Amino acid sequence: LKHSVTEISTCLLSRSAPLLQQLERSMSTVTIPPPACMLRPLEAPLRYLFGPGPSNVPPRILAAGAKPIIGHMHSEMFEVMDDIKEGIRYAFQTQNNMTISMSGSGHAAMECAVFNTVEPGESVLVAINGIWGERVAEIAERSGAKVHRLVKAPGGYFSNKEIEQAMQKHKPVLFFLTHGESSAGLCHLVDGIGDICRKHNCLFLVDTVASLGAAPIFMDKQNIDILYTGSQKALNAPPGTAPISFNDRACHKMFNRKTKPLSYLFDMTYLSNYWGCDGKPARIYHHTGPVSGFFALRESLAILAEKGLEESWRKHKEIAAYLYKGLEDMGLKLFIPDRDLRLPSVTTIAIPDGYDWREMLAYIMKHHQMEMTGGLGPSVGMVMRVGLMGYNCEKFNADKALHALQDALKNCKKSKA
Amino acid sequence: LKHSVTEISTCLLSRSAPLLQQLERSMSTVTIPPPACMLRPLEAPLRYLFGPGPSNVPPRILAAGAKPIIGHMHSEMFEVMDDIKEGIRYAFQTQNNMTISMSGSGHAAMECAVFNTVEPGESVLVAINGIWGERVAEIAERSGAKVHRLVKAPGGYFSNKEIEQAMQKHKPVLFFLTHGESSAGLCHLVDGIGDICRKHNCLFLVDTVASLGAAPIFMDKQNIDILYTGSQKALNAPPGTAPISFNDRACHKMFNRKTKPLSYLFDMTYLSNYWGCDGKPARIYHHTGPVSGFFALRESLAILAEKGLEESWRKHKEIAAYLYKGLEDMGLKLFIPDRDLRLPSVTTIAIPDGYDWREMLAYIMKHHQMEMTGGLGPSVGMVMRVGLMGYNCEKFNADKALHALQDALKNCKKSKA
Repeated sequence: LKHSVTEISTCLLSRSAPLLQQLERSMSTVTIPPPACMLRPLEAPLRYLFGPGPSNVPPRILAAGAKPIIGHMHSEMFEVMDDIKEGIRYAFQTQNNMTISMSGSGHAAMECAVFNTVEPGESVLVAINGIWGERVAEIAERSGAKVHRLVKAPGGYFSNKEIEQAMQKHKPVLFFLTHGESSAGLCHLVDGIGDICRKHNCLFLVDTVASLGAAPIFMDKQNIDILYTGSQKALNAPPGTAPISFNDRACHKMFNRKTKPLSYLFDMTYLSNYWGCDGKPARIYHHTGPVSGFFALRESLAILAEKGLEESWRKHKEIAAYLYKGLEDMGLKLFIPDRDLRLPSVTTIAIPDGYDWREMLAYIMKHHQMEMTGGLGPSVGMVMRVGLMGYNCEKFNADKALHALQDALKNCKKSKA
Repeated sequence: LKHSVTEISTCLLSRSAPLLQQLERSMSTVTIPPPACMLRPLEAPLRYLFGPGPSNVPPRILAAGAKPIIGHMHSEMFEVMDDIKEGIRYAFQTQNNMTISMSGSGHAAMECAVFNTVEPGESVLVAINGIWGERVAEIAERSGAKVHRLVKAPGGYFSNKEIEQAMQKHKPVLFFLTHGESSAGLCHLVDGIGDICRKHNCLFLVDTVASLGAAPIFMDKQNIDILYTGSQKALNAPPGTAPISFNDRACHKMFNRKTKPLSYLFDMTYLSNYWGCDGKPARIYHHTGPVSGFFALRESLAILAEKGLEESWRKHKEIAAYLYKGLEDMGLKLFIPDRDLRLPSVTTIAIPDGYDWREMLAYIMKHHQMEMTGGLGPSVGMVMRVGLMGYNCEKFNADKALHALQDALKNCKKSKA
């Protein structure tokens, strides 16, 4: 229960004499000097971003993001946003009207999904086989949900039967699964799970941040109720925007809440209006979206539309297979044994015996200007990760990555372990 | 009370035969075709952004935002973030260690401030004299706070006595005031309020989104506990980042909470680590910050440091005075009668008798490619707003704005009212 006291006072404009004096005085009292570091130009080295993201942004997308901006509420901006919606619908393979981009990274989409569809006290089931499920569980708990965790080791696979059993037991309103588990390198199948969720009156929320554009996903056909992704992986836009889509089932749940969502910024009632999805004629100011970020996101979705999803999926699969062979040829072992379950965009390598993975990665960064990374969350110390996503997904980049790894294997002294 | 059931299952990698078939089949079932709109190039017209923001982004900042990106956790990125912190400290005139940029617009900073410093059931006092106080009150209510509103008409001024009386009555843990009330065109003085807050054991939260760099503010000397701004006003960066700083009093409150903040994304425990403010040697992945947005923000803060705060304040005051004279010379009336209380970055004009403000603004957009705006929230229908901020704050732009208004006054038919 909230109590509020409203005090309406008449508008009394103070015209006291000391005001002007205060203003004048305050103009001359800067005590913190301009920082010396700011008199140096911005420096950022060129890097091969072959980790799990962000990936390298192609010049065409950088140029789109550098166009002079327009207002966030100009009609031309709404056209750009309409294009983005179409581009997301294609990438997600959905006809959902309620399709927008968050003004934030994948975590903003995660919080938006949970904040809008779950009310305090409701049950949420989260499949955890890497870091992303952990994050969603944490977010849902903070929202006051009863969170039930279905936990496997990183890269673990959930059978539909296991999922249905947990659903029967916990009666969740929302079930979360990661399609592209980038911390483990797993691409989880989703077929049939949407149907199980419908049977149990539960929404199906899927994270495709690391997989969209790299591995097939069909939001409508696979009965996914809420799907989101990030801009900085296979889409190759800078981080800071995150496409998300809700189907009618999800809309019905989120627009028939008893309580307001915890966040005003992520409230879909306002975001749906801002994105022209609520059928109302006027768009009302909610927040100021990242205009340059939306320009870049539009360009990245345009590139995907031009290339075609099938070609993008095929290419990621082909280059991943080439990478697997190269890795195995140099004696490295892939972390996900079943190649059909490997995430084509991010490959996880079991840490070779006797090597210090931190040393190898530092060597590769220093000598090859190349980012590869270790594990994340529960997979730290288990894997090294190589991502070749979108623009970076080329045979010559796979060769560069393989060469760098070979060099590190040769030059990084084996530890005593 | 939260209940959670953890189920640890062994990792069972499914190797069922139909998997590969499913994958192969799914590659060929794209049913949503690439959208035609995406085969057109991105179009965005050149605009004079003379509204309340975003303002035009100078080429130098656009170029910084278009630099090839690096990883969000690379050491060079941490250097950029360290520079940003220094730049914010200068702009805010503070030595606070806990100084960061949000990965989001001003609303993200607003929610971050409230989510981290207020716990459910605590009392919050919000001064409302335009839209921004309304927003903070809404955000605090959603957080479960007891919100007390101190309401004036748009542009109203709160005396320190009124504020102290309300504080005595409601015993808030947080008091919010807008320094630059862009919806009304008011620049509220803050002298003495920080002391009143200390006396009453309350944190002082100030919004300078529309005023930073345009009107003097001294976070440390004025005893402001939490201060935030936006990137897209007088700083002239694209929207999408928002500097925020917390002093020791604010840190003490927010790091001694009994409950977790509602948002994981905006949890200062993690954000302070991401920004290297928590004194810990290692920075742990929290979320992926908007790398390009941070490049642009750094450049905008560098420009302010080069120019100097005093010069920036002087320039905004000078150009605003020039604009006031031009407006009054053509018979327009300024909405804030006391010129010492006018916000130098955003000037509010009372809607001239017999004119339809929507028609005037549409005329100016159509014939002068220039954005001016109407009111916002409670000031809709009361004012038209002209913003000349940072890069846009030049005499020749004031002349352009005056010329466009003169033209609209001449050509927009008077309504019958």
